[in-house]
Amino acid sequence: MTVIDRLNGLLEDTRFTRFIMAVIMVNAVTLGLETSQVAMARAGELIHLIDKICLGVFIVEILLKLIVRRFKFFLSGWSLFDFVIVGVALIPGAQGFSVLRALRILRVLRVISVAPSLRRVVEGFVTALPGMGSVFLLMAIIFYIGSVMATKLFGASFPQWFGTLGQSGYSLFQIMTLESWSMGIVRPVMEVYPHAWAFFVPFIMVTTFAVVNLLVGLIVNSMQDAHSAEEGERTDAYRDEVLERLKAIEGQLAAVKSAESVPGEQPDSKL
Amino acid sequence: MTVIDRLNGLLEDTRFTRFIMAVIMVNAVTLGLETSQVAMARAGELIHLIDKICLGVFIVEILLKLIVRRFKFFLSGWSLFDFVIVGVALIPGAQGFSVLRALRILRVLRVISVAPSLRRVVEGFVTALPGMGSVFLLMAIIFYIGSVMATKLFGASFPQWFGTLGQSGYSLFQIMTLESWSMGIVRPVMEVYPHAWAFFVPFIMVTTFAVVNLLVGLIVNSMQDAHSAEEGERTDAYRDEVLERLKAIEGQLAAVKSAESVPGEQPDSKL
Amino acid sequence: MTVIDRLNGLLEDTRFTRFIMAVIMVNAVTLGLETSQVAMARAGELIHLIDKICLGVFIVEILLKLIVRRFKFFLSGWSLFDFVIVGVALIPGAQGFSVLRALRILRVLRVISVAPSLRRVVEGFVTALPGMGSVFLLMAIIFYIGSVMATKLFGASFPQWFGTLGQSGYSLFQIMTLESWSMGIVRPVMEVYPHAWAFFVPFIMVTTFAVVNLLVGLIVNSMQDAHSAEEGERTDAYRDEVLERLKAIEGQLAAVKSAESVPGEQPDSKL
Amino acid sequence: MTVIDRLNGLLEDTRFTRFIMAVIMVNAVTLGLETSQVAMARAGELIHLIDKICLGVFIVEILLKLIVRRFKFFLSGWSLFDFVIVGVALIPGAQGFSVLRALRILRVLRVISVAPSLRRVVEGFVTALPGMGSVFLLMAIIFYIGSVMATKLFGASFPQWFGTLGQSGYSLFQIMTLESWSMGIVRPVMEVYPHAWAFFVPFIMVTTFAVVNLLVGLIVNSMQDAHSAEEGERTDAYRDEVLERLKAIEGQLAAVKSAESVPGEQPDSKL
Repeated sequence: MTVIDRLNGLLEDTRFTRFIMAVIMVNAVTLGLETSQVAMARAGELIHLIDKICLGVFIVEILLKLIVRRFKFFLSGWSLFDFVIVGVALIPGAQGFSVLRALRILRVLRVISVAPSLRRVVEGFVTALPGMGSVFLLMAIIFYIGSVMATKLFGASFPQWFGTLGQSGYSLFQIMTLESWSMGIVRPVMEVYPHAWAFFVPFIMVTTFAVVNLLVGLIVNSMQDAHSAEEGERTDAYRDEVLERLKAIEGQLAAVKSAESVPGEQPDSKL
Repeated sequence: MTVIDRLNGLLEDTRFTRFIMAVIMVNAVTLGLETSQVAMARAGELIHLIDKICLGVFIVEILLKLIVRRFKFFLSGWSLFDFVIVGVALIPGAQGFSVLRALRILRVLRVISVAPSLRRVVEGFVTALPGMGSVFLLMAIIFYIGSVMATKLFGASFPQWFGTLGQSGYSLFQIMTLESWSMGIVRPVMEVYPHAWAFFVPFIMVTTFAVVNLLVGLIVNSMQDAHSAEEGERTDAYRDEVLERLKAIEGQLAAVKSAESVPGEQPDSKL
Repeated sequence: MTVIDRLNGLLEDTRFTRFIMAVIMVNAVTLGLETSQVAMARAGELIHLIDKICLGVFIVEILLKLIVRRFKFFLSGWSLFDFVIVGVALIPGAQGFSVLRALRILRVLRVISVAPSLRRVVEGFVTALPGMGSVFLLMAIIFYIGSVMATKLFGASFPQWFGTLGQSGYSLFQIMTLESWSMGIVRPVMEVYPHAWAFFVPFIMVTTFAVVNLLVGLIVNSMQDAHSAEEGERTDAYRDEVLERLKAIEGQLAAVKSAESVPGEQPDSKL
Repeated sequence: MTVIDRLNGLLEDTRFTRFIMAVIMVNAVTLGLETSQVAMARAGELIHLIDKICLGVFIVEILLKLIVRRFKFFLSGWSLFDFVIVGVALIPGAQGFSVLRALRILRVLRVISVAPSLRRVVEGFVTALPGMGSVFLLMAIIFYIGSVMATKLFGASFPQWFGTLGQSGYSLFQIMTLESWSMGIVRPVMEVYPHAWAFFVPFIMVTTFAVVNLLVGLIVNSMQDAHSAEEGERTDAYRDEVLERLKAIEGQLAAVKSAESVPGEQPDSKL
């Protein structure tokens, strides 16, 4: 039994998985406590220490996996996910930028890659996405067209909402979610351009309809998966049995007939 | 016939159930009238008296049930539900705290445990929850991560929204419901942190997508239950009959064949 | 052929139905024009005249139906619907109250009772309601409890939103629709009662979940109706044919067997 | 091989389709760059030149299609779609009106008519519409009635929201989307007309219920399409096979019986 085999056994041990899960939980708590000024004032050094220990455990775990699985490590989406999440903490100067430091909490997402039930849910989400690719592409086109039109039409008078393509895209996203679309944006715009509703109302209808179709597609897909997985097997088994029995009956009938035409023969010996 | 048997008969009498239902209704009205200053000024004492009588009836009912069912009382979720709701009124000092006094109206919820049709609806809701456990857990993780990140990133500049983990969680819940997320929160935040949309827009998309998946899961589950309950039985009965008849035909054919091979025998005696 | 028969023939004539439809359309236009000050200044008398003629036609139509169908007239929901809508215009003093005059536009709803396709849609809506009765009742209970609690807890400090049971019910309806629930209502309330979220967030979750269940129930019902109506018939026809053929085969087999046991008999004569 | 045949071959060549797709992409970028003041200051002439070249390519493509397909060109919805979108740029004076210039970005929609996957999605959307025609008509009637009533009831006091039929329709659309319906509109209205909720709350319930029914209809239709397309074929094939085999068995049985009644005959020769 080589060292690699032993390491592999360790990595696949459920006790090891539980230990990693516990470290993730502890790290989640310490990262949460970092947001509390009271906790940081009283036990800031301890919290930072625990955080570093947790990070160390994660790094060792990933190094072990790299040693055992080598190139295969990078073939699994979940391994890459862990690698990137832990790696963010090691970027030089990461302690300087508040954004990169805030990203450390994403380590809690590792709990998903460790817990099978959460993993299945996320994999279910991700597998649902490709089927909606065309609708997403269509919505991207609608948003691009809408942004260009809104920027050209209303950008001059309302630079805070429609000044650039990016601002228009954000404002149109807000309008699609129906948040303050009328009182906040369209009514003020209509005071300058009285016919602005002719742009925004159809935009709302089209994007809402597209979102509804995404939802409908999701429901229909889930239903078919559930249907085929459960009922389908029983139906197939039943159908196979019916067809087999029918064939057997036909075979027996043929035997009966041939026995009659050649009365002296023993039909049993034929089957 | 012992006293226990008589009490049991009383508790299961539909007239008794109707009486309890009526008391709940009356209590609902008096608790509602307590909110009216005019009603309290004119008949405050009467209202309080009726309320106390209703409470007395509930206490007697629960004591009777405790006497009859003893430990089994605490095995039923609905009994515990009634016990806690009525018990709240008996907490010492409950008349002092306005919150505990306001909780007395929860007694109206007892109508659910008494009316079978409402009971089924609530049981349907509750049985739907475990199937959504993983998605709820996932959303809790997303909310925790989002709260920590929002607190670290925006807490310093916007303490009223993202000052603590709790405030961030509440604000993110508001954002998930799409209420004033842009005009009320994200646009002001973007004036200080222009790239804040890169946190909030994905957060909205992920949480909305998770909520949609909860909905889809609910629909698929309900559909399967409804399908299997109604159609399934008829299909199963049909399938069983087809298979039985096919087996009978095969048996008859075998009899025909054996009769032919041994012509002198009586095939009827064989079946 | 009596007068009644002739009138009945007239009422069931498609040309008569089309004429009534045209009158409804004309009346819809005149009632719409009444809202325009320019139109009223130029042709106010003409508009009022046309409106009165239309009303006259409706009254004559209903009187004819009353004469022909007598008591049966009041057995049809749609006839009663027409009767009430037209009758509103005849209430003495109806011309004085602006609300009753505004209700005249409801006559346009008559187009639903005349056009079969719209009638089916509305009948579909109405037949869906009883199945949701329990959930509606449950929501009514939740709203009553929520209103009493909100009035007792927050009524003193926020009389404009939670002063009375009615105001609380309206505010809770607004909160259920998620409109300005946080920025508009709960955040201000939380400045006085910091734990108010513990009432409102569960309220939102419970009512939203109940609404979602209404939606799920609607989808499942519609799906079953559509399924049974279309597929079901074909499946039933197929199943009947399979079972009949199987029985016929069994019968023939029995005949074959009896023919063998009594070789001299003619099996054909038996069937 | 005539010129027409050659042109037809060119138009149906995938390389030509890809070239058109590329031109659409380039044009999308240049139309987007037109919204950027920096880009226009640096390379405005180049951008306009590319835009004109793209337009030229589109015009040549459509002329070629017109030459090849002649009258058939106008029978395809997608051809007409392309024709109108490109034609907008050729309206005399189109460079003068900012609205018509903004419409040029609609050319990007041509990508839908060129890419088959997007085309299918849009065709799916469009084919779903007729089935919802009755519900749309019903909603139009409800909106018309609601607009007339709101204008008559609240127009005098709130001309900015309910001054004309058009303004009322817009405001009711906003209320249907639940945007600021209470805080923004109904609460201010209720300060003048305290019973205004009796108009708006039912309006919200009815329109939301109608929208939900549209959604339910969409889901049921999609489900049936998906069901019949996939499962249906397999089920039909299975059923046909079962019935055929059953008929064959009956035929063989009949042959067996007739062979018995006329023992000397060869049953095989009969089939």
